[in-house]
Amino acid sequence: MSNPSLLILAGDGIGPEVMDEVKRIITWYGDKRDMPFDVSEDLVGGCAYDKHGTPLHDDTMARAQEVDAVLLGAVGGPKYDDLDFSLKPERGLLRLRKEMDLFSNLRPAQCFDALADFSSLKRDIVAGLDIMIVRELTSGVYFGEPRGIHTEGNERVGINTQRYTESEIARVARSAFELARRRGNKVCSMEKANVMESGVLWRQVVTEVHEKEYSDVELSHMYADNGAMQLVRNPKQFDVIVTDNLFGDLLSDAAAMLTGSLGMLPSASLGLPMANGRPKALYEPVHGSAPDIAGQGKANPIACILSFAMALRYSFDAGAEADRLEAAVETVLADGARTADLLGPEGGSPISTTQMGDRILAAL
Amino acid sequence: MSNPSLLILAGDGIGPEVMDEVKRIITWYGDKRDMPFDVSEDLVGGCAYDKHGTPLHDDTMARAQEVDAVLLGAVGGPKYDDLDFSLKPERGLLRLRKEMDLFSNLRPAQCFDALADFSSLKRDIVAGLDIMIVRELTSGVYFGEPRGIHTEGNERVGINTQRYTESEIARVARSAFELARRRGNKVCSMEKANVMESGVLWRQVVTEVHEKEYSDVELSHMYADNGAMQLVRNPKQFDVIVTDNLFGDLLSDAAAMLTGSLGMLPSASLGLPMANGRPKALYEPVHGSAPDIAGQGKANPIACILSFAMALRYSFDAGAEADRLEAAVETVLADGARTADLLGPEGGSPISTTQMGDRILAAL
Ligand SMILES: CC(C)[C@H](C(=O)O)[C@@H](O)C(=O)O
Ligand SMILES: CC(C)[C@H](C(=O)O)[C@@H](O)C(=O)O
Repeated sequence: MSNPSLLILAGDGIGPEVMDEVKRIITWYGDKRDMPFDVSEDLVGGCAYDKHGTPLHDDTMARAQEVDAVLLGAVGGPKYDDLDFSLKPERGLLRLRKEMDLFSNLRPAQCFDALADFSSLKRDIVAGLDIMIVRELTSGVYFGEPRGIHTEGNERVGINTQRYTESEIARVARSAFELARRRGNKVCSMEKANVMESGVLWRQVVTEVHEKEYSDVELSHMYADNGAMQLVRNPKQFDVIVTDNLFGDLLSDAAAMLTGSLGMLPSASLGLPMANGRPKALYEPVHGSAPDIAGQGKANPIACILSFAMALRYSFDAGAEADRLEAAVETVLADGARTADLLGPEGGSPISTTQMGDRILAAL
Repeated sequence: MSNPSLLILAGDGIGPEVMDEVKRIITWYGDKRDMPFDVSEDLVGGCAYDKHGTPLHDDTMARAQEVDAVLLGAVGGPKYDDLDFSLKPERGLLRLRKEMDLFSNLRPAQCFDALADFSSLKRDIVAGLDIMIVRELTSGVYFGEPRGIHTEGNERVGINTQRYTESEIARVARSAFELARRRGNKVCSMEKANVMESGVLWRQVVTEVHEKEYSDVELSHMYADNGAMQLVRNPKQFDVIVTDNLFGDLLSDAAAMLTGSLGMLPSASLGLPMANGRPKALYEPVHGSAPDIAGQGKANPIACILSFAMALRYSFDAGAEADRLEAAVETVLADGARTADLLGPEGGSPISTTQMGDRILAAL
């Protein structure tokens, strides 16, 4: 049997630097844990545009469909700000999500004990926080038609369409309930059913899936504006949150920032099972391309490394190996290893991207 | 000349109780400051549905169009959860906003010094916080057509339309720039121009209005997901934030919760000038109808009272009188007066809704 295959798309900004550390971890798993991967690399985002005039080449798209998992760094940068909408780096990422049909985006918001004081929130509000946000990723206002800017009379009009079908809602709801069963067994679904009919349907379908298939899981509903408030007020009330593409974008970023550990947070985007039983999958850090610090060896590689841990767990059924990697990260943090982003107002001397990689390899 | 006219729509839940205290304040302004108002009262929300079978009667709508300002309490409650979408209490409020064309929703997020420890955020992050969120209130996905739930093949599909015209964006941008000039002279505009064409147009129009009419004001742009993060990380970086209806709903609620003073926060919804030069206007607290504590004399009337202060400032050109009322509120807080919602984990004995009204009247 051939080795499992990985496609690495390091992307722009700090993407390549943090991905370099992940590559060393992958090699370590091949050498030391007898888990060799076939790794290939390609371009996405601004760097793909620079080379091919498009943020995702068709060949790259085809390759992404074939591999067992895609690892992505980050896309975007000020250099591309004035590009036409359809050529922006983000379109490369959105095309991957859409064509791979990665409907379930798992965004853990976890507060690392060693970093709890780093949050803008009080320690007791966030210490021990461990929420999983499940964001629908292939539909809603990100992809709905009609869309665009046109002229009516003598003025421009901008249009996007929020659109959800019953089956799109049902499948992401199922993935949230499945996760909840392996965690705290609680799901909170968020929408604006008081204002939007797409939210009314969302609430109905989540309720139906719950009644028919997951009545053992505790389900609650919350308006998304209240959800934003409750995340700030008392985030530990949540276990799994399931919500649509746009609300998920804002709410998961707010939740990530609560932890004070933004440079630490990974994500998994999962689709339907392939012929080999593995889900279509893409793993990426929650942070962006951070063009201001790119190329300086300052970036924190942990979010990208923990994204690979999620790959071990969700694509390669290697939960124990994921635990091992996560434990190594906790160890180096507890030992006081800090990249620049992890230094509090007291300061201290930061280690580089590569040094953080060294420390994690040593802890493994 | 006749007295300025106020229409009071106390609504549901705690609405009537908190509005009772506002009525006493209004009477005080008539008696002691020679500012008499002609006050009428009517129904909105669930109570209007109970009486008329609609959350806003046409006669009430017509009356709202005639008065100088509407004061609203709160709408909604679990009793109405299963009502058809078009009959929900919220539709009454949305109809008022839409038909009065109240396009500029001003939501101050202000941290009261006496309450700073009450925030889930660290004191130094929120003490002294004073942001103004300007939310577009009459367009976007709240009102765009087509909308609804229909069947395609054998499944249901939920649709809403995000739609913004150039003039809708320009007018709310102007109101944000005008406000900024009287404050910190900084506007941050938030959208998702990296994903939505309506956001691309939003950014373009805000930029154009800025260049042509307000180049003295400092303007920045931020993606709304980053905005949600930055509000949590370091809210004091903002002065005025301008954003669309849906993003404004989530972001202003998150910002309100940061202050720890949710029961304290007022809002103003302003439209075009009427024949007498006053803008069409509706004032309401940011908090909801809190059905769990309704009728028990526990509710905090301050948000509703400060909404009347905003009415004095924005509708009746009585900024000094608004300052007086706001100062009275600060005084009673500094003196330690606390309704139940303002007690920290240490406890203490709360005063009632009416007692809080008494204290504020005494301080005036
Ligand atoms: C880069 C951008 C297109 C993307 C999104 O809006 O989904 C990002 O914010 C994210 O959350 O992954
Ligand atoms: C009650 C509801 C319709 C309303 C909204 O979504 O606008 C509320 O959340 C608000 O922010 O005023």
